[in-house]
Amino acid sequence: MKNETTIFGIRAIIEAVKSGKTIDKVFIQKGLRGDLFQELEHLLRSEGINSSYVPIEKLNRLTKGNHQGAVAHISPIKFHNIDDLVLNSIESDKTPLFLLLDQLSDVRNFGAIVRTAECTGVSGIIIQKKGGAPINGDTIKTSAGAIFKIPICKVDHIKDAVFHMQSSGIKVVAATEKATDLIYDVSFKEPCAIIMGSEGKGINPSVLKIVDNKAKLPILGEIESLNVSVACGAFLYEAVRQRC
Amino acid sequence: MKNETTIFGIRAIIEAVKSGKTIDKVFIQKGLRGDLFQELEHLLRSEGINSSYVPIEKLNRLTKGNHQGAVAHISPIKFHNIDDLVLNSIESDKTPLFLLLDQLSDVRNFGAIVRTAECTGVSGIIIQKKGGAPINGDTIKTSAGAIFKIPICKVDHIKDAVFHMQSSGIKVVAATEKATDLIYDVSFKEPCAIIMGSEGKGINPSVLKIVDNKAKLPILGEIESLNVSVACGAFLYEAVRQRC
Repeated sequence: MKNETTIFGIRAIIEAVKSGKTIDKVFIQKGLRGDLFQELEHLLRSEGINSSYVPIEKLNRLTKGNHQGAVAHISPIKFHNIDDLVLNSIESDKTPLFLLLDQLSDVRNFGAIVRTAECTGVSGIIIQKKGGAPINGDTIKTSAGAIFKIPICKVDHIKDAVFHMQSSGIKVVAATEKATDLIYDVSFKEPCAIIMGSEGKGINPSVLKIVDNKAKLPILGEIESLNVSVACGAFLYEAVRQRC
Repeated sequence: MKNETTIFGIRAIIEAVKSGKTIDKVFIQKGLRGDLFQELEHLLRSEGINSSYVPIEKLNRLTKGNHQGAVAHISPIKFHNIDDLVLNSIESDKTPLFLLLDQLSDVRNFGAIVRTAECTGVSGIIIQKKGGAPINGDTIKTSAGAIFKIPICKVDHIKDAVFHMQSSGIKVVAATEKATDLIYDVSFKEPCAIIMGSEGKGINPSVLKIVDNKAKLPILGEIESLNVSVACGAFLYEAVRQRC
């Protein structure tokens, strides 16, 4: 899978971007100079494509080809436009239910969440352009193919998605241990969006400030921390239960 | 972690078993002969210890030591006795809630389930001696340490555990897509045990025949299959919701 979605060489990557391919992430060799490289950098910035500067050894591991200092992962899926997605979901006869993922980093968790979202009838998943798990062969496998069935959008910052939801009349509920309300105290019957945070840091504090509700799962043991894909499943199934 | 819990050499393994160490599994070289080997085989059978016959290359990968045709994984945890566990849980002031895992094979799923079980106040987890995921460093990590906090029992067959539960007045509910009842239609308020099946095959048909209830999660999408640790979390949280 990895090879199918990896391209390399500065010119090849520039052409892929210009031809409209969906690039997931570009890895660029640290300290690279030259006109062609500047053209690539400028293009990535203007298109808002995720990139990172890495040592040459990392690039050599990513491909055996002559990479000339740049390797890109092409996304196996096309991303949806958030405006269209929200509008379509409001106009449909189903009550909208969105899932916002704030920089979730583990590919297997991401895949399991996409799978659960598809099974619970989620209208769409919104992720951040930067800082999240990649969409690659492992994601496809752990999502059991659900990644091809459910619309996914990318935004610059999860806050943008929160404002977008709220201005469309969709209530935003953050899944956080810092909540005082249990999930059973929050209504998921109206149009709503649930935010799940990253494995290490949870939801960004600046995002928590602007949500409509915070809710937590009851914890009866000592460990006090659930796997994020399990917690997400419990939230989504609470929404399903309230709606059925 | 792997090295800490691996021992090798036929005599060393025999002594470990006799001294009461909890052996998770023994790998034995195919075609091995001799008195000492027969002694080991006899001991493993009489103690009901999980073993499998493998090519010498597999043993060479498991240890760099002079293994003489046998390598064993020592379990990082002590297993509980099912009689004591059920009795203690009935006598406690908490309504018993057990989790039975029918040959779940993925270590990460097993770890995530142990973590969720600890967080939802499960009284104990019952697994089969053979055919399930090992308890090793990965299990400890993905369980976030919960594996040391929750009692775990091993039985020869999950059916034994089902009969044990039923004869102690504990209702047994199977999590299966073959159910007609949704989880919301089943009461988890009384003492009960939930069975989750393996990733590939689900719950053994002979087990399904003897349970008190079958229940499923509603599926609203096309994929029609959830990750088992996510499904287990949704079941356990439905029990928590009904009881709170």
